[in-house]
Amino acid sequence: MKIGILGSGNMGRSLGILWAEQGHQVFFGARTTEKGKAVAELVGHNTQGGTNDEAAAFGNVLLYTIRGINPVEVISSIEIFNGKILIDCNNFEIPEGFTYQPIEQSLAEKLAAEVPNAHVVKAFNTFAQEIFELAPTPLKDYKVSVFVASNNENARKTVMQLALEIGFTPVDCGELRNSRLIEGLGDFIRFLIIGQKLGPYATISVDVLPPAQSERLGGRQSSNLR
Amino acid sequence: MKIGILGSGNMGRSLGILWAEQGHQVFFGARTTEKGKAVAELVGHNTQGGTNDEAAAFGNVLLYTIRGINPVEVISSIEIFNGKILIDCNNFEIPEGFTYQPIEQSLAEKLAAEVPNAHVVKAFNTFAQEIFELAPTPLKDYKVSVFVASNNENARKTVMQLALEIGFTPVDCGELRNSRLIEGLGDFIRFLIIGQKLGPYATISVDVLPPAQSERLGGRQSSNLR
Repeated sequence: MKIGILGSGNMGRSLGILWAEQGHQVFFGARTTEKGKAVAELVGHNTQGGTNDEAAAFGNVLLYTIRGINPVEVISSIEIFNGKILIDCNNFEIPEGFTYQPIEQSLAEKLAAEVPNAHVVKAFNTFAQEIFELAPTPLKDYKVSVFVASNNENARKTVMQLALEIGFTPVDCGELRNSRLIEGLGDFIRFLIIGQKLGPYATISVDVLPPAQSERLGGRQSSNLR
Repeated sequence: MKIGILGSGNMGRSLGILWAEQGHQVFFGARTTEKGKAVAELVGHNTQGGTNDEAAAFGNVLLYTIRGINPVEVISSIEIFNGKILIDCNNFEIPEGFTYQPIEQSLAEKLAAEVPNAHVVKAFNTFAQEIFELAPTPLKDYKVSVFVASNNENARKTVMQLALEIGFTPVDCGELRNSRLIEGLGDFIRFLIIGQKLGPYATISVDVLPPAQSERLGGRQSSNLR
């Protein structure tokens, strides 16, 4: 798969390196050609580097790491996104005292409104950079969820597969509207990591437990699922 | 500990039974004496049953399972809550198509405003009734999080201990304002359980992973924790 990284900071660099290691062709884009090339050279094989424009033109799948900034400010023409898968991995800035505001519109929905002809996918926003250091092993054993939402089913499945390949456990979260809930998880885990001092290796995941063998408490009537 | 259950439906019944099994004195309250007594008789030892008023008078710790209803409609005088620990385990009703509205004020904050002299604690709202069937074993092995928030530290610690005793893994979530995020988790897991058909044994938990042994990707700079 041809993957373009828009913004080659920590998130972009880490995911790009991990995907290149899996055999994908990765183009690291940055504000300047020099910066993009410098990141690409850290890896060597399967990678190129240059501008964000070049990265966007190169990839069928694009990772958008530039939080809250309209692509028109970064890319010369948004036509370049037409029909492409555009992954939004961002969270809102942490407010003073973790007093998060309710999410009326997610960053992913905002991005989708700005680039209406791209297939925007929410993913990779619910853990710290440090988790990538564990990928793909031993991460696979820890079953860390990547929550994936998109209005385009093919885009969602593609990103779930890309998450799986580098050791995560993808969770299908349906339509892009649900990115509001996923960004809420991003807010929550950052509160626990920083505010509650659980540290950067704290993760939040879904786990389906084996069913109970008996129902002594009357388990069939799930009143709290009302 | 003396625990009063306000509203002895599935949630109240299950938690009450589990706490009674741990040796706590549990009073099951309901709208009628008969209903409260009937639930208490299901267990037998360490339990009594009667009205919600009686349950509120009995317990030092109270479980409020009556979603979104102001206690003045259920209890003859809210003075009875003064200085008591009041656990709110509720979530908002699921809207059509899981189109949850942003949480401006959590149910727990609303309850705290209605009963200002109680120590309101958010907890036990992020899994289905069925999970209680696994408590306290094998639940303990699955490390299922109970997210606990309260402005009163002693109340928070007490509820964390009560969660621990029945096989859960309590997570200290600080002040009651954070119940907005916790209720967001409740919305999300119900979406996955019902909407995405993961079923009632789907849980959401925090896990702190062992740190990586090397930092080949440059893990120290957590750009996505901004």
